[in-house]
Amino acid sequence: MPYDRLDADIKMMKEAGINVVRIAESTWSSLEVEDGVFNFSHIDRVLDAMGKAGIKVIVGTPTYAVPSWLVKKYPDILAVTPQGQYKFGPRQNMDITNPDFRRHAENVIRKLMQHVKDHPAVIGYQVDNETKHYDSSGPNVQAMFVKHLQQKFPDIAAFNRDFGMDYWSHRINKWDDLLSVDGTVNASIGSEFSLFQRQLVTDYLNWQISLVKEYARPGQFVTQNFDLDWRGYSYGIQPRVDQFSAAKNLDVAGVDIYHPTQDKLTGEEIAFGGDLTRSMKQGKNYYVIETQAQGFPEWTPYPGQLRLQAFSHIASGANMVAYWHWSTTANSIETYWRGLLSQDFQPNETYREAKTIGADFARLSPQLVNLKKDNKVALYFSNQALTAFNWFKFGWTSTIEYNDVLRPFYNALYRMNVGTDFVDSSTGDLSRYSMLVVPALYSASDAELQRLNEYVKQGGHIVYTFKSGFSDQHVKVRATQQPGIIAPAAGIEYSQVTIPEKVGLKDNPYQVTPEENQARWWMELIKPTTAKVLASYDHPVWGKYAAVTRNQYGKGEATYIGFMPSDAVIAKIMADAVKNAGLWGKDQQLTFPQIVRHSTNQQGKALHFLFNYSAAAAQVTYQWEEGKELLSDKPVEKNQSLTLPAWGVSIIEENSVRR
Amino acid sequence: MPYDRLDADIKMMKEAGINVVRIAESTWSSLEVEDGVFNFSHIDRVLDAMGKAGIKVIVGTPTYAVPSWLVKKYPDILAVTPQGQYKFGPRQNMDITNPDFRRHAENVIRKLMQHVKDHPAVIGYQVDNETKHYDSSGPNVQAMFVKHLQQKFPDIAAFNRDFGMDYWSHRINKWDDLLSVDGTVNASIGSEFSLFQRQLVTDYLNWQISLVKEYARPGQFVTQNFDLDWRGYSYGIQPRVDQFSAAKNLDVAGVDIYHPTQDKLTGEEIAFGGDLTRSMKQGKNYYVIETQAQGFPEWTPYPGQLRLQAFSHIASGANMVAYWHWSTTANSIETYWRGLLSQDFQPNETYREAKTIGADFARLSPQLVNLKKDNKVALYFSNQALTAFNWFKFGWTSTIEYNDVLRPFYNALYRMNVGTDFVDSSTGDLSRYSMLVVPALYSASDAELQRLNEYVKQGGHIVYTFKSGFSDQHVKVRATQQPGIIAPAAGIEYSQVTIPEKVGLKDNPYQVTPEENQARWWMELIKPTTAKVLASYDHPVWGKYAAVTRNQYGKGEATYIGFMPSDAVIAKIMADAVKNAGLWGKDQQLTFPQIVRHSTNQQGKALHFLFNYSAAAAQVTYQWEEGKELLSDKPVEKNQSLTLPAWGVSIIEENSVRR
Amino acid sequence: MPYDRLDADIKMMKEAGINVVRIAESTWSSLEVEDGVFNFSHIDRVLDAMGKAGIKVIVGTPTYAVPSWLVKKYPDILAVTPQGQYKFGPRQNMDITNPDFRRHAENVIRKLMQHVKDHPAVIGYQVDNETKHYDSSGPNVQAMFVKHLQQKFPDIAAFNRDFGMDYWSHRINKWDDLLSVDGTVNASIGSEFSLFQRQLVTDYLNWQISLVKEYARPGQFVTQNFDLDWRGYSYGIQPRVDQFSAAKNLDVAGVDIYHPTQDKLTGEEIAFGGDLTRSMKQGKNYYVIETQAQGFPEWTPYPGQLRLQAFSHIASGANMVAYWHWSTTANSIETYWRGLLSQDFQPNETYREAKTIGADFARLSPQLVNLKKDNKVALYFSNQALTAFNWFKFGWTSTIEYNDVLRPFYNALYRMNVGTDFVDSSTGDLSRYSMLVVPALYSASDAELQRLNEYVKQGGHIVYTFKSGFSDQHVKVRATQQPGIIAPAAGIEYSQVTIPEKVGLKDNPYQVTPEENQARWWMELIKPTTAKVLASYDHPVWGKYAAVTRNQYGKGEATYIGFMPSDAVIAKIMADAVKNAGLWGKDQQLTFPQIVRHSTNQQGKALHFLFNYSAAAAQVTYQWEEGKELLSDKPVEKNQSLTLPAWGVSIIEENSVRR
Repeated sequence: MPYDRLDADIKMMKEAGINVVRIAESTWSSLEVEDGVFNFSHIDRVLDAMGKAGIKVIVGTPTYAVPSWLVKKYPDILAVTPQGQYKFGPRQNMDITNPDFRRHAENVIRKLMQHVKDHPAVIGYQVDNETKHYDSSGPNVQAMFVKHLQQKFPDIAAFNRDFGMDYWSHRINKWDDLLSVDGTVNASIGSEFSLFQRQLVTDYLNWQISLVKEYARPGQFVTQNFDLDWRGYSYGIQPRVDQFSAAKNLDVAGVDIYHPTQDKLTGEEIAFGGDLTRSMKQGKNYYVIETQAQGFPEWTPYPGQLRLQAFSHIASGANMVAYWHWSTTANSIETYWRGLLSQDFQPNETYREAKTIGADFARLSPQLVNLKKDNKVALYFSNQALTAFNWFKFGWTSTIEYNDVLRPFYNALYRMNVGTDFVDSSTGDLSRYSMLVVPALYSASDAELQRLNEYVKQGGHIVYTFKSGFSDQHVKVRATQQPGIIAPAAGIEYSQVTIPEKVGLKDNPYQVTPEENQARWWMELIKPTTAKVLASYDHPVWGKYAAVTRNQYGKGEATYIGFMPSDAVIAKIMADAVKNAGLWGKDQQLTFPQIVRHSTNQQGKALHFLFNYSAAAAQVTYQWEEGKELLSDKPVEKNQSLTLPAWGVSIIEENSVRR
Repeated sequence: MPYDRLDADIKMMKEAGINVVRIAESTWSSLEVEDGVFNFSHIDRVLDAMGKAGIKVIVGTPTYAVPSWLVKKYPDILAVTPQGQYKFGPRQNMDITNPDFRRHAENVIRKLMQHVKDHPAVIGYQVDNETKHYDSSGPNVQAMFVKHLQQKFPDIAAFNRDFGMDYWSHRINKWDDLLSVDGTVNASIGSEFSLFQRQLVTDYLNWQISLVKEYARPGQFVTQNFDLDWRGYSYGIQPRVDQFSAAKNLDVAGVDIYHPTQDKLTGEEIAFGGDLTRSMKQGKNYYVIETQAQGFPEWTPYPGQLRLQAFSHIASGANMVAYWHWSTTANSIETYWRGLLSQDFQPNETYREAKTIGADFARLSPQLVNLKKDNKVALYFSNQALTAFNWFKFGWTSTIEYNDVLRPFYNALYRMNVGTDFVDSSTGDLSRYSMLVVPALYSASDAELQRLNEYVKQGGHIVYTFKSGFSDQHVKVRATQQPGIIAPAAGIEYSQVTIPEKVGLKDNPYQVTPEENQARWWMELIKPTTAKVLASYDHPVWGKYAAVTRNQYGKGEATYIGFMPSDAVIAKIMADAVKNAGLWGKDQQLTFPQIVRHSTNQQGKALHFLFNYSAAAAQVTYQWEEGKELLSDKPVEKNQSLTLPAWGVSIIEENSVRR
Repeated sequence: MPYDRLDADIKMMKEAGINVVRIAESTWSSLEVEDGVFNFSHIDRVLDAMGKAGIKVIVGTPTYAVPSWLVKKYPDILAVTPQGQYKFGPRQNMDITNPDFRRHAENVIRKLMQHVKDHPAVIGYQVDNETKHYDSSGPNVQAMFVKHLQQKFPDIAAFNRDFGMDYWSHRINKWDDLLSVDGTVNASIGSEFSLFQRQLVTDYLNWQISLVKEYARPGQFVTQNFDLDWRGYSYGIQPRVDQFSAAKNLDVAGVDIYHPTQDKLTGEEIAFGGDLTRSMKQGKNYYVIETQAQGFPEWTPYPGQLRLQAFSHIASGANMVAYWHWSTTANSIETYWRGLLSQDFQPNETYREAKTIGADFARLSPQLVNLKKDNKVALYFSNQALTAFNWFKFGWTSTIEYNDVLRPFYNALYRMNVGTDFVDSSTGDLSRYSMLVVPALYSASDAELQRLNEYVKQGGHIVYTFKSGFSDQHVKVRATQQPGIIAPAAGIEYSQVTIPEKVGLKDNPYQVTPEENQARWWMELIKPTTAKVLASYDHPVWGKYAAVTRNQYGKGEATYIGFMPSDAVIAKIMADAVKNAGLWGKDQQLTFPQIVRHSTNQQGKALHFLFNYSAAAAQVTYQWEEGKELLSDKPVEKNQSLTLPAWGVSIIEENSVRR
């Protein structure tokens, strides 16, 4: 802070209804000013002031940015990656496995925990921040990787065979000969290294969690703020963390969600990040630990948008909405990452809107916390498939990644108001879902695929895309007709593929524009075995092959999409699949930009969130049982027409508890 | 030279009226063939021949390209930058602070000076060549930087606070802990390092100047050829040199100006570079030490263009126009940087046109040298603001820089024939200007801004753009309402900003095309306090904010532009400001591509240069007092209509001395 | 292979008529599992099985991919380039001059040769694979380069002069001072280094050839698979190998040709690579050692294309067509480089078409092997000119290279059915050609140019493009009027150049579209001396200069093209030149996409290959003597109309032996 304004800040926070703050996370050099010399004065000051004001505090371990004295003493702490060693300057540039880093990190965490754990304002802890492995691959990590392989593959000959090491003279006769994979062209060992790196993140977070839990008082929680694949905003599955695995030992999962606003605000990222984070711990409510207030200059919100965003988070099951950050830093890289306040600390339009959110939250929290979902559709993703897919993409110069395939399918569900969970191969019971969407499951073990076959056999509906089932867990392509083990469930086979050029779907089966009817990126030359052909390619040569198929398998059915359709065709295929799975209903009377999300609250009452992601006001028919619009505190009849203003929100709580 | 042709060259030079040449500047390895072994024979030969022919010589110190024997002996001489150490091969790749380099440079300069100083042909010296700091940031420079900080900031706590070092754990407790800023994300320390690097250049040039002056005879001058920000041609303010400071100890400022020609010749770069260099030494005449003859292949001039360019330099106050270079090298990287002659040494169209320039110069020099200007408008620039601005630009992926903002404002003045000086914070007296244009003064001390407020208060007219006043001299954003200290003068305030998308100006106040009416790059959400709103945004949400304002403050007024307008709107706003400053006059009857520039010559007579930057002939009315067109030696009446041919020039000297 | 399927593979190979396979080439780590420990079991197994099945084997030396144990022991084996040292992972990343590499390579080659040479299935050897110098420029190579210069230039002063070393202080006084040219800006020394690097490749291949020949039985051949400049497919002259020189000691030249297919299949790359490789050894038949079966996904062939491609190779003089590769690897980088079979090893459309090729080859080989050509036109290329040209291209930011100039001229000949050889400065007798096309001969010695003058004088027809004759063999621009030594033959001179903007040809002399009439990339401002002007520029300023000229010189004539024309204008200029050379004939009744190629077979009979490079069937008139269509075994009359289906082939053997 440029001047002492703690009291002024707290006053403004209180006026905005802010009741939790997060501190300490990147302040190692302020906390431990020299090796072993600690200064807690700023922390004490804030804790006391917040405590007095009744604002609760989450204390973050300060480890994601290392002090210069530490780097000066141990230069190896800066991670070595395939692109060389990081420089000092950015955060998140250390080798999280470095013993010197670990020893000092442990020390500062212990000192901090001892100091703050008994303060009554402290309700919980955040371990580190958006932790990843930072592509660390130096000698330290390489030695651990060799040990990892050695333990996983007792038979080096099997390793050579499964990983295709003969190719280009990579075969090794003893583990000592395995060189760094920094330059490898072998996706099998490259993907194994990524898996190993993701495990390093899980191990590191678990280590921090254990340390923190040694001190935490009963009732204090431990969380972490996971983030998503970053495209200038939160886009898709995070490639560098197995989040479902890393979340296991957390008390609460947390997430950071950033997204475009103004005319580009859709709610997609809010829903995606929320559905994902809620699914990490099997539907348990989560925290939005960071989201934008003003954000980037181009995100300065229109009136209403900050409210719409906040209630959208709640509708996904969030139990907290926290902004990064309160005010805006006057120096350094986040000068244009705008907080609730600008550097002038004056109330502005965004802050004023935040005050209304705080007031509504204060009043409605009993009805809005701990919301539960009961989704019948899940999106099946795989970190292993993601990594392996991205090794190849759609050719050597392609820049299109796994998440570019996955997101349009998620978006289609979101836009047609189909509530969606996320599952991965670690998810226990799939049978609670009527429908699974499985994009680009490029690398998977036999067992994983057989489990999906079994899911269909038992009555499930699966929508697969191209490239699913192609290679095994070692990214070795299956030596069978494709799509490998899932072929019987899909009822198809193919042996050849190509890239579509001027290829559409014959007779425009989904009745879209000619442009939307075109195939993108990839196409498999599919022959149905038992499947029904839903669409064929429109092309002089490839016209004889199937593009979309559906197959009855056991009690269920599988839809297979052999190419990347336009968003419009994806929407049509997904709608068709949803109908076939018997899930088409009232919600689908609405469509984006009118969004409806459902929950059940602690009182056992159904909540219906109606969102208008549009600059134009909208009339929507409320189709559910009679209830009360919570924000206006007005009754709502079934089939009553409601007006949603631009970027508007309505939340109707049904009057009766659902049975 | 591929064969001995010195006499032939001199003969052709004489025929072209060339009376000065520049030698020796990059020939260290020819001069000192091994460590301590010198060979002056080629220099002697040229000096003698030139002397005999009556051609004067500027001798350059040869230090901007180091010999291989020196690099072999001291590999550390090649500068280490954030991108690694330079390789041998290019020029200007050394660490100018390296002690071994300095010792050898001193030695070769002293030897050269001893050798040439008494030769009668030598009229002056050029120290080094387009000197910059070459981004040098190795251990040597880092140690000096730490010392610089230590001296500038006796209180390390104040340093930490002013530079925002707490952020991301950068706080230091002792200076020894300050690591290299190569990887920093902190614009405050990054900009301070740039300032320090620019100081290294000034120090280095001053060191060379002192060395040379130890030997120079009275009457021999010392100059340097400054260059501009390079965009494939000379574009804007040089980011790596504080030229106004570095020019102080030179006898004459020099400049290298390169620019597009053919259909793209506008004269903008000639005027910009000339106005800047003339302003470096408070209006003192300067040398164009390098400009193109044929230049790049795409610059081969159309007939008339070489003449137009030469007289445009003179019109800006140049006392010399020198070409890089005489003939074209047969080897190496400048094979396609074409001199007056091609590698065939034959007279060509360009050379033939140069001969006419030489003849005119010979005849008209008494009237054309030492021209004086009396401009009422100045463009206020800042190296510190430039550096700080470029840290952030308009977002993390933006490539638009300070000079992209500054140049369109300069161009607008040039195109409407408003004579313009340049000033920066080192400029003594601003009161001689009726109007200052201050683009993007992003980083400035309180004192600097207060001085500008005072300028307005005393009757000055300022045009500010967005982002001015935003942060202090340490690139710390001011903790006040924006635009900070200049807010009272501007009569506005704002707290929020955004990036314009489909934002225009309401009711098209400047009557331009719809496309030209759009806002670009940046917009501040401005509320007037005391200012009058000249234009508002046209946008459903941002429509309530001001885009352009004007405010009376003391005896003067300030125009504030909150966004980046199109070139067409800039022209209208600037015209409006010029009128308001009472400067609209006869010159503005002409507009680009017809350009008029004024001077007063040694005889005290007014000179009016009329330039036609167009492939079409033009009629212009000569509006000034009766005089003589110097090139044709014909009288010209007031209000006489003159025909300027394609790319044509007229120079009228008034008959009477102005009082 | 993922499972033991050698017998199954051989069965499928036999069914496809495959009678040669290539093994061992990148399997060093499988062959020598540790330093000095060899395992030949997999080689023995394949040799025995192939031998039993009657399939012949080419054994490749395994040296182009080094085992990890070798790199671990000698890390310097990985080449150091201007971009740093290669990482382990890719192939072709070693320093081929490294003594440790050489010693181990020699050992494994000797061991392999001893082991396989007597196996009856082995018919020949391939040394290494697509060998190049991999840009190796580390200390080892630098020392050899200095020695190379020292021997080539006994007079260091002459070296300094010829290479323009004074420029930017590069002059050296003793050879020890010559630093690495990694960072050089001097095209003269840069090109000399490239020449030296290409010599390293020749030396290395000759060294391997000698080693192999120590063991090879009489009748066993030695070959290498040269490749072309790579643009995602085989594009032009290989910049890193002097292939005509490197091919000298091979028994048979080999080539790898990859190219687009589907709607982009033109046959251009097949013809280009074939004509080039056939010319390497003066018309001797060659092997297509690698070409695609399915290839990249976007190359999956349309029906008929695999046949069309195979017979096109034969028509160029290939004696073998081999696919890379049989089946597709299940792991690593070539997972999507599809062989004849996909990873499922099932017959697919491509394999089924290959079977028909195998059957036709088996039946028709006596008529189709050892075909001879008698071309009257040759394309003159130069590795030295290529390297030198690419140093400058068309300016500092230009990405257009020598091959971009050369290929359109080759394509024009191919498309108008003019049979073309390739020649370079090593080619003995040029007089057998009536016409030479010489694009961008940017760097050439006096002797080389005088030989071309002599060729014209003696009655030859040359077509030169711009930039020919410009600089000598040291890339020193000639100090004469351009185009230097060839000026008398071309009958022109020029001294200035520029880049065309909105420049066309006056009066559209070639009657093309306005777009096609535009000049591209470069233009020389040509004045004819003795030449006739065929076309002038259309431009207000440049209109007075010639664009295309023709000159009688001795008994021959030279056409000179001063700019880069559109493909359409190139076709017209070339047609004109072909006519003037008296070579316009029946073949030119056909034009792309109908292609005709001629040969004489072992029986002394003329063969006429008719290819339809189109998705539409075509009628063509067979204009030659009566014969038999070999594929259908049907008689064909002179002037009979033949139907070529989409992507169709006809091969007519004349009935009578030509006299």
